[in-house]
Amino acid sequence: MIKEKLNIIKIGGNVIDNTALFDQFLIDFKNINDSKILVHGGGKIATTLADKMGIETKMIDGRRITDKATIDLVTMVYGGLINKNIVAKLNAKGSNAIGLSGADGSSVLAEKRPANPIDFGYVGDIKAVNANFIFKLLSNNIIPVFAPLTADNSGQILNTNADTMTQAIGVALSEYFDVNLVYCFEKNGVLSNSEDENSLISTLNYNEFLLLKSNGAINKGMIPKLENAFEALKKGVKFVTIVHARNLSKLGTTNQIGTIISQ
Amino acid sequence: MIKEKLNIIKIGGNVIDNTALFDQFLIDFKNINDSKILVHGGGKIATTLADKMGIETKMIDGRRITDKATIDLVTMVYGGLINKNIVAKLNAKGSNAIGLSGADGSSVLAEKRPANPIDFGYVGDIKAVNANFIFKLLSNNIIPVFAPLTADNSGQILNTNADTMTQAIGVALSEYFDVNLVYCFEKNGVLSNSEDENSLISTLNYNEFLLLKSNGAINKGMIPKLENAFEALKKGVKFVTIVHARNLSKLGTTNQIGTIISQ
Repeated sequence: MIKEKLNIIKIGGNVIDNTALFDQFLIDFKNINDSKILVHGGGKIATTLADKMGIETKMIDGRRITDKATIDLVTMVYGGLINKNIVAKLNAKGSNAIGLSGADGSSVLAEKRPANPIDFGYVGDIKAVNANFIFKLLSNNIIPVFAPLTADNSGQILNTNADTMTQAIGVALSEYFDVNLVYCFEKNGVLSNSEDENSLISTLNYNEFLLLKSNGAINKGMIPKLENAFEALKKGVKFVTIVHARNLSKLGTTNQIGTIISQ
Repeated sequence: MIKEKLNIIKIGGNVIDNTALFDQFLIDFKNINDSKILVHGGGKIATTLADKMGIETKMIDGRRITDKATIDLVTMVYGGLINKNIVAKLNAKGSNAIGLSGADGSSVLAEKRPANPIDFGYVGDIKAVNANFIFKLLSNNIIPVFAPLTADNSGQILNTNADTMTQAIGVALSEYFDVNLVYCFEKNGVLSNSEDENSLISTLNYNEFLLLKSNGAINKGMIPKLENAFEALKKGVKFVTIVHARNLSKLGTTNQIGTIISQ
């Protein structure tokens, strides 16, 4: 059966922090004709505000520990400030977007990550995506814009990785659509040398990934991003691309720039 | 034509600040069987956070001046923290709620209030309600929960009075429903002596309101609340009641407590 195409675009925090780049990105997102969903990350503003409010930023292995003050802060910043401003800007350009967290319509339910071995605090591991609810919105020509927040079944809001949320939503919506996941960020794609923007890897399969990971060419934050990407393909997502945010409008054209991920 | 009934419940900030009262209110709201919408106010947390962040609270005639730092703050607190926590709690009880600002789906568009004679800053006067969008959500058994925020047609978020927003949504939805507006707050209803909870006025029409306003029995914040209520009735809303939040479950029963507003 031929399914309709659904683009799920993830935009990283570093792009959100770059006003000119982000404004252009929103125009390019608005101009995508197929069905679409936006998932956004955080950005530096959460850390800036935490400092202002005297909330200490605690990190373990590069991951933020989400204590009570921090979950309230990210609920405000991701779910309120960033999300509502994106929606207002898209709709001013003629879109019909609505802002959502995983709590809304119980669209992405999670469970607090076990405190053992490391207590990350109010961090959610995704348990269920309410694909039917998201499908209903899309069927009514409503464009969902997700903040990286989920809720558990007691009504507790949980901080959730935006790449993982993108992947989980993509997998769940594969029941209804041919899903095209696009991870947009501030680099040209997956690089064989993270310091050299010209070292773009244009296609990457799982075995190549394992090799480049073992020799250290792919490292740090790119590892979980790619693990999410391969997981998505394994579970039913049709296409995954990792691109610079400025190249969103070139997707699917002959001068596409970025990394196409394949199994 | 007999229309379906729609309850639009407004809940004030003082109730949100009272955890026990607010939790019971959410249970009572969840248990309303007809179609329903919740509109919530702010609460003290915005002021508390403004203090923490060094944002000065400026007031003129009892109204907050919304400068750039303040509109960002209320977008975070109303649109993020309060709104998402209400939605998560309702859905944990089995509802199908989503949180909205007026920006979402361009549901409530506004214009920045003219700077003359007093510059209130980023405050919105409502210009249009997208009744069709809200109707679509209700038709899909989705319960809208509105934060008191709107957007203008340039994508600027604006601070908007929650009572006025309730009235405007009620008037717009009167096209589709018999609308029942219920303003819930921390008093028994309209009182002839604001210090005496036993001085409840059980029904109030416009002429009685003018008389009680002229002799000072009705004063302060109750005046704009009632002006909103009469405006709603004049423009097509069927019923308006002003009640204590703890009495929401008694609405429409023989032991209803509160003030019924009539033209």
